[in-house]
Parts: sequence; structure tokens; C-alpha cells
Amino acid sequence: MKLATFDDGAGARVGLVTGTALIDLAKAAPGLPATMIGLIAAWDEARTTVAAASGPAIELAAVRLLAPVPKPGKIMAIGLNYADHIAESGQTTPEHQLWFAKLPNSAHAPHAPIQLPKVSNFVDYEAEMVAVIGKGGRHISKADAASRIFGYCVGNDVTARDWQFKTPQWVLGKSFDTHAPFGPWIVTSDEVGDPHTLGIRALVNGETRQESNTKHLVFNVFDQLAHLSQAVTLDPGDIIFTGTPGGVGIAMKPPAALKEGDIVRIEIDRLGAIEAKMQPEA
Amino acid sequence: MKLATFDDGAGARVGLVTGTALIDLAKAAPGLPATMIGLIAAWDEARTTVAAASGPAIELAAVRLLAPVPKPGKIMAIGLNYADHIAESGQTTPEHQLWFAKLPNSAHAPHAPIQLPKVSNFVDYEAEMVAVIGKGGRHISKADAASRIFGYCVGNDVTARDWQFKTPQWVLGKSFDTHAPFGPWIVTSDEVGDPHTLGIRALVNGETRQESNTKHLVFNVFDQLAHLSQAVTLDPGDIIFTGTPGGVGIAMKPPAALKEGDIVRIEIDRLGAIEAKMQPEA
Repeated sequence: MKLATFDDGAGARVGLVTGTALIDLAKAAPGLPATMIGLIAAWDEARTTVAAASGPAIELAAVRLLAPVPKPGKIMAIGLNYADHIAESGQTTPEHQLWFAKLPNSAHAPHAPIQLPKVSNFVDYEAEMVAVIGKGGRHISKADAASRIFGYCVGNDVTARDWQFKTPQWVLGKSFDTHAPFGPWIVTSDEVGDPHTLGIRALVNGETRQESNTKHLVFNVFDQLAHLSQAVTLDPGDIIFTGTPGGVGIAMKPPAALKEGDIVRIEIDRLGAIEAKMQPEA
Repeated sequence: MKLATFDDGAGARVGLVTGTALIDLAKAAPGLPATMIGLIAAWDEARTTVAAASGPAIELAAVRLLAPVPKPGKIMAIGLNYADHIAESGQTTPEHQLWFAKLPNSAHAPHAPIQLPKVSNFVDYEAEMVAVIGKGGRHISKADAASRIFGYCVGNDVTARDWQFKTPQWVLGKSFDTHAPFGPWIVTSDEVGDPHTLGIRALVNGETRQESNTKHLVFNVFDQLAHLSQAVTLDPGDIIFTGTPGGVGIAMKPPAALKEGDIVRIEIDRLGAIEAKMQPEA
């Protein structure tokens, strides 16, 4: 199944995506929780109802897609997790998983303009597969990890490089408003199958900048859940950015920052694509 | 005013603290938002009603105090922000404010046991004044910052030192479940007056370990809001840990980790005290 959060002018709701349209679950299954986090938390009971939902189809072209989880409880992201990106960053493979946070204000709709902040002179893209936590928990084993993931989407770990490196802690440079677009919807884990077999690409104005496959993750998604949950309880709807491959703008020769009007597209096999224009902060 | 989130067995509510008792705002002013974040967001309209609230007093001893904001949207914390703590850490004063995140799962009640995690061998305390964002916003000027803060409380930036330094990014070592206790309530900004004149102390089993004054902050609270809000929108109920003075356990000779049964007390003038026992993770 593919589940989106959308707004057609009457407020945010969850929809079941079927081809180029979606079914409004607020109308098709009014007994279900109205938000994506609520639906994920109730998924054991809700799943059959959602799968059987029917009703008038609303064309995707007629709605605005929001971030599938509009206000995540937390957004975690792992750094230096593809060999070619580690090399281009002049680093060595980390002994331990290298985690940072993107603050929730950065969560952003998949196709909405991305801010070029007033105070940054180098904004960059990072194509990433995103895992959405389902049941979650603490001390999740690698063997159990697959069952704790609700689904996957496409993400862009947008980064203000000057702020990332202004201090040793990356969080502010990773958390500007609008700098965590993801979507276009969540593809449920059963429909994705093996998440470590997916081609992943970033294109800027149609030019391919990043091209890899999730099979090249240094620490795979299940390793990631096992490690994170040693420290923190993972909750339904939490968002995990799983790392970016080589080809980011800061590593180009010469380095190439995103500029006003650039179109950044991130694609992942079986998950879809998100695409947005770079726009100066108002 | 002093505002607490409490539970007497009938669910979490907001209470107005008066001496050793509180007034249940859910009964005294049922038209007001039922959560602390809701109340903060509606404060311009709610303030007069809360100030005039009356009703039967519930003794504080008869209720369980929760984190004043039980589920903050974000918790930010600044590192290396008192001269004596910078010196004991073997660092120099940062040129730029050094920010990290504590993930929201770490938010914890002021007097509830704090976890000694299974996977850490060095848990430490850090006494900190905590600012609670009121109106918030983006690009807040230093001159406006005071008006965007709802109030202040006492916090303990509990830290798993081994995890803090396992990678260059501190977030996981700062975010274990239960490792951001704060409270015991929020003292509103008007009642606090100048937040940069407050004595701050940490005691372990009655022994004073940290003793300073918020006048010694390198970057004061208003500088902090101005800097953070260049990057991120601050929202009502967001939590800011403002830095810890010298005297943490890792800097003692020899280093002293917290151990099972230790009682950690953090006190700040005019704000109150939080006190909790260290307890192994179940």
C-alpha cells in the first residue's frame, strides 16, 4: 500500500494512493485515526480496513501532498554511510554509526519549494532513503527490526554546509525550516520487499548528480534500528534518514551550491520521486 | 505564576502552583486548552483567566509532577557555555554557539528515577537553567527575545559520556530515555525577572558538585534565541537547555560516574529544585 498525507483545501487527511489518484480515508473509513501517526500506531487493527477502502478517487494532480508524517516526533539521520560519500568527504568509514538529528521544524512537503536561508551561502542536497518507524520500541534486535518499520519513502537531507561546519555539531546546519522534505508517500514495508536493493538518484535541473543503490549502505537499515534503540525508544511515525551516496554539491570540483530556481529531484526505485524548486527565504 | 503538569491518577492536567498546593485548571478554567503547549500558545488570551483561577487546592505531596511540557516539539541544548566548564573540559571558548539536540523521548518528570542504561558505563549530571519558548518565531532579535520566552525551569542535562564521545556527534549520548528531567514547574518570565542573576547548584547525595550563577553564561539566553532562530522556527513549548557550569562528574579527579541509588538534586534560585534517584534500566 501507498499512504499519503494530503490537503485539497479542506484540511490535512490521510489517503490511500492508487495509481494517479487517492482514496480519502477520512471518508472511506471514518472510524480510523485521522492522522498518519495515529494510523501507524493502530496499524495492527487498521490494516485490513485500509486495504479494503474504496470510494471516489481524487486525482493526485488536484491535491497538495504534505510530508507523509507532517509533525514527526523525531527525525534521526546517519552520516557517512555510503563508501563513495565517505571517500568524497575525505573521511574513513566510521567505527560506530554516526547519528545526528534534524529538528522536526525541518519536516517538509515533497514537492514544495525549499528555502535558501538568508543566513547561509551554501545549501546542498543529499538523496536518502527514509524509513518510517511502525511499532518501534527499545532494544530492537536486528532480526526484529524489519517488523518495526512501517514503510519507506524518498528523502532529501537538505544541508546548509556553512552552518554544518560552523561548530563540531551538525544539528543546526541540518535543521533549517523546510530542509527535510520527504515523500511523496509512504510505501508500506510489505510492498517494498527488500529495502536494500533500491536504485537511488539525485538530479539537479535534470543532471544526474548522485546515483547508487541502497545495497551499498555501510550500516543497513536493520543495523540502524538496532543501534538507535539501544539509546532511545523509537515511536510510531519517527523518521530515519538512512544516509546519502557520493555526488553531493560540496564535493564537486569546484563545489556547487544550490541556487535560486534550481530543480532538485530525488528518485528511489519502487518508492517514487520528490521534486522541488529552490527559493529564497521570504 | 508557576505552572505545573501533574497527574493525580485521573490523567495529566495543568495546575497553577500556589505555595505547597496547586489549583487544577481543568476544573477552575475548563474553557482553557488542556495541555501546557496549548496553554502557552493561547497565553495572550488565557493569562488573565489563569491568574484569577481559584478552586480547591490539591496538595503537591498528593500528586505526581510530570515534565511541565510532557512531549516537547524539540529540545535544544548549548554546550561549553560557562567559563569554568569550558576549562575543566580542556576546551577553549567557542567562537560560535555550540548547539546539540536532546531527542524528545528524553523529556522526563522532575522527581522520577533516572535510568542508568544497560549499554552505558558513565552517566553524568549537568545542572542547567531551562527556558521554555512562548510565542517563538524565526529571526528573533536579541531585543525581542525576552518577550518570546514563556518561562524558566530547572533542568538536568543527563549525559551518557561514553556514548557522547563514541562519535563526533553528541545527540545519542544526550538522548537516552529519561535523560532530560526538568521542572518542577515553569515559573513565568514576569515572575522570574532577570534570568541572568540566578544561583545554580547540583548536589549528589547532598554533596555540592556544581555551584555557579547564570550571570556567568558565555552566551546569554537572549543571544541563544537570536542565534537559534536564524535557522529554525521556535514553537510554543520548545525547550532550551542553556548550558552547565563547572563541576561535572567526568571532570573530577578521578572521574566519578553516577551509580545506582545516587540522589541527584539540581537547584536554581527562584525556580525551585528537581531531585531524583539513579536507577538501573529495567
